[in-house]
Amino acid sequence: MRLRYLGERRVVSHIRRAFGDRRRGVLVGIGDDAALVRTPGRLLLSTDLLVEDVDFRRDAHPPRLLGRKALNVNLSDIAAMGGRPLHAVAGLALPADIEESWLKAFLAGFRAAAREAGVALVGGDLSQAERIVVAVTVTGEARFPVLRSGARPGDAVFVSGTLGDAAGGLRLVEEGGHRGVVKAVRPLIEAFLDPAPRLGLGALVARRKLASAMIDLSDGLSVDLSHICEESGVGAEIEAERVPVSAALAHMARDPLSMAINGGEDFELLFTVRPRHVAAVERLAARHRLSRIGRITAGRRRVLIGPGKRRSDLRAKGFEHFTG
Amino acid sequence: MRLRYLGERRVVSHIRRAFGDRRRGVLVGIGDDAALVRTPGRLLLSTDLLVEDVDFRRDAHPPRLLGRKALNVNLSDIAAMGGRPLHAVAGLALPADIEESWLKAFLAGFRAAAREAGVALVGGDLSQAERIVVAVTVTGEARFPVLRSGARPGDAVFVSGTLGDAAGGLRLVEEGGHRGVVKAVRPLIEAFLDPAPRLGLGALVARRKLASAMIDLSDGLSVDLSHICEESGVGAEIEAERVPVSAALAHMARDPLSMAINGGEDFELLFTVRPRHVAAVERLAARHRLSRIGRITAGRRRVLIGPGKRRSDLRAKGFEHFTG
Repeated sequence: MRLRYLGERRVVSHIRRAFGDRRRGVLVGIGDDAALVRTPGRLLLSTDLLVEDVDFRRDAHPPRLLGRKALNVNLSDIAAMGGRPLHAVAGLALPADIEESWLKAFLAGFRAAAREAGVALVGGDLSQAERIVVAVTVTGEARFPVLRSGARPGDAVFVSGTLGDAAGGLRLVEEGGHRGVVKAVRPLIEAFLDPAPRLGLGALVARRKLASAMIDLSDGLSVDLSHICEESGVGAEIEAERVPVSAALAHMARDPLSMAINGGEDFELLFTVRPRHVAAVERLAARHRLSRIGRITAGRRRVLIGPGKRRSDLRAKGFEHFTG
Repeated sequence: MRLRYLGERRVVSHIRRAFGDRRRGVLVGIGDDAALVRTPGRLLLSTDLLVEDVDFRRDAHPPRLLGRKALNVNLSDIAAMGGRPLHAVAGLALPADIEESWLKAFLAGFRAAAREAGVALVGGDLSQAERIVVAVTVTGEARFPVLRSGARPGDAVFVSGTLGDAAGGLRLVEEGGHRGVVKAVRPLIEAFLDPAPRLGLGALVARRKLASAMIDLSDGLSVDLSHICEESGVGAEIEAERVPVSAALAHMARDPLSMAINGGEDFELLFTVRPRHVAAVERLAARHRLSRIGRITAGRRRVLIGPGKRRSDLRAKGFEHFTG
């Protein structure tokens, strides 16, 4: 049945059924003018918009995975502050021709991601639109918040995971090749359609005060490193050969390093570490798939060192490029 | 200059300039992965979506007033809980052909409404869309929250202001007659384009524990009263002749009472009052423009009494209609 015939009341009833739990200090949940929740004395707030045909494509993004991603991109912001997520509210604008099955799958995905992270959906709003819009706001607790502004010259630069996988997945999806691609590149499509927020890692380095500055890689290493540099008033040197690239991306792309440096939506964490804490972070490297990729410098320049080819071989926005 | 040439960086810089203050316990504001704010132990959360061509029309809604309304419809939800608003985050999806002047006016309106209510904008997200989407989430404090579920048989039903004005204004705007309409009906257009959240009234009746249940009139008296009745498990009798109608609406419309009962977006407050508190509320009536319009009953029926005409003369969804 399509939403046009379903009515807002039935949609809200789907949502209440899916999310009508009372956890995480939810005093008043879905169904009143506003939710009422217990909160710590200091609260993180983050909001994200996903717009159809800009941030995702309906035909390429299974609704269950879109529901997961709509929450998880927000949780990635909480992870980047070193926080623990608590509550979410969601605004949903839906076209009249959306199938009820689409909505159910979307809500199931959102709920699964919420359960995994221990987040309670406490409220929302519905409207119509020609293209789907999902607007999610999350709250979180951060006893030791890590800002973008804390990097100092001499700090080491670490990233989690491998970079560029989501960009590779996006390219595969755009080429329409994601149904029936070879097994070797399937992780790229997963990275794009179903990214995982690094909540455990973010909270760990915050609690142990190992990170001086942190950001999640939503716009790509080159852009997000520039945010750290601008907010901290510093520069950075990145060694291209240390930027972690997955076997899947190397298999798929002719320019894996460019994709790792410029591609967005990996939702891995980038953080800086004072020299005295580097050894402690190195000890976490294997378990949390961390790579030390460079260092923070005085001045404002962002320099990419290597990989010994001409600059034109490596499009890297925002970097001055030095051959190694 | 149009947004296409303006770039996200410049838009964010507009926003940071407009909202870069540090009030209301804002520890980390716009510019990090998430905002960090001081909060009371119990927090209200509410979110609203405004979608172009569904919730507003760009050519009919001056951007300054749209900016005000985008925040104020959220603040109305906080008012309906008896709360005091604290913080806001906003997601904004904009078409590429939006003028910079439109954005500046929108932000100026949003900021003005935020200042009037003492709200700090602490974060947001930008995306693109063919139609404008504004997604606002607000937080608030409520020491004595008033829910929808507290009404009991015998309670009196009060509303603030006059009802149906926004519906009248919408009709005028849709007829294109809002430029150069007679002075007598201008308040209707204002009520529609620039509604005021009843924060003072909501907080007052909450603090003095005068309201047993409360809701803001966003969908119209008939629908919003049904929410109170359903959440409280009660019925209601409304006396049609007591429903407050403005001189402007009576001047403009042939069916002012239908508009007052069914029209949405007035953002006035509807609340129920125990018999022992009715006298105290009556003493507030003149200053806060309150009208006592009926009473809560046992059972589930919602009955509209009067005004002595045939039922067909008064379309009133959700009511059984008794002539008086």
